[in-house]
Amino acid sequence: MKLFKYRIFRKTAGENDLLDITEEVLTLVKKSGVKEGFAIVFVIGSTASVLTMEYEPGLAKDLRELLEEIAPQDREYAHNATWNDDNGHSHLRATLLGQSFTFPIEDGRAVLGTWQQIVLAEFDHRPRERTVVVHIYGV
Amino acid sequence: MKLFKYRIFRKTAGENDLLDITEEVLTLVKKSGVKEGFAIVFVIGSTASVLTMEYEPGLAKDLRELLEEIAPQDREYAHNATWNDDNGHSHLRATLLGQSFTFPIEDGRAVLGTWQQIVLAEFDHRPRERTVVVHIYGV
Amino acid sequence: MKLFKYRIFRKTAGENDLLDITEEVLTLVKKSGVKEGFAIVFVIGSTASVLTMEYEPGLAKDLRELLEEIAPQDREYAHNATWNDDNGHSHLRATLLGQSFTFPIEDGRAVLGTWQQIVLAEFDHRPRERTVVVHIYGV
Repeated sequence: MKLFKYRIFRKTAGENDLLDITEEVLTLVKKSGVKEGFAIVFVIGSTASVLTMEYEPGLAKDLRELLEEIAPQDREYAHNATWNDDNGHSHLRATLLGQSFTFPIEDGRAVLGTWQQIVLAEFDHRPRERTVVVHIYGV
Repeated sequence: MKLFKYRIFRKTAGENDLLDITEEVLTLVKKSGVKEGFAIVFVIGSTASVLTMEYEPGLAKDLRELLEEIAPQDREYAHNATWNDDNGHSHLRATLLGQSFTFPIEDGRAVLGTWQQIVLAEFDHRPRERTVVVHIYGV
Repeated sequence: MKLFKYRIFRKTAGENDLLDITEEVLTLVKKSGVKEGFAIVFVIGSTASVLTMEYEPGLAKDLRELLEEIAPQDREYAHNATWNDDNGHSHLRATLLGQSFTFPIEDGRAVLGTWQQIVLAEFDHRPRERTVVVHIYGV
């Protein structure tokens, strides 16, 4: 079993930017030449997530509103008070949604549903340069 | 390291159906003959999840109620308005709980707790034919 | 590709104890000698989680408060009524946050952000002896 290592670099627009990185990941699967195996998609950092969703503007809006309800931006967070920061809610959202996603590869293709996109979610309050690590394993 | 590929097909009853697929997954681990390695359990789609829980009727009820509280069915979602659909809440629940679960295998057995079942969760509002992809890697 | 199997044993203080196990995991990565590959960090049980966060007291407090809001301890849960138990909320929190975390290894080091710690979260109401399984794969 071989390993192919890649990185995707994306500049985000800040708070709640949801970027569809599916095409880039699928291109890497093809580039690797792996026919049977799996891929790990991992974002470095504690205020961003890798998640899956049907990527369309309506759901993106719904997800932003849901997260604002679960962990509102303007609540008083101990993290903000301690560090004179204002991204306590960003950290909580990222912890809830996670930073790592693993999917299977068969017949040289990612096994994903038609409406199952891979999304890089920015939760930090300012634009960031994000690094997504993609490891593809297989034969 | 070898790869064994399997698929589990399950017909769900729709909205909030929670199906314990642990026995099927454990049977596949045995069938593969893998002694040391890991397994990826992955559901195709954006309105279903693979999760772990103690599978008993009380907790199943509690989980359904929790998700109804977090993302209620009868709220107005942009997804529903845009697509004349009614499963906005299903998508959000699936994104929160994820579609991929990885666990270790040792001595030919899945390393899982006694009350740590692998569950296929249907969040869509109608019965679906679900495909769960199981990849087992190891020696 | 080789597999190195380890276990981390930790005694928790009960309800909402958050233990930073990053150093132990990084030490295992080094010990394995794996230069390029990945690691699976998995906790056995259905009332604990493995998650990532910036590990600092403020955020730990914020996370505990968020989870108390999402799944309060003193709510009536069917799980508690059925089994004369009082950890229904613990199960729900563990299901939401998950039990498995996978991260890449490159140049002999875990690819993690500076403020992206690996945390064992105890959600059960009493102190427990937890077993975290760490599998490291690679060359």
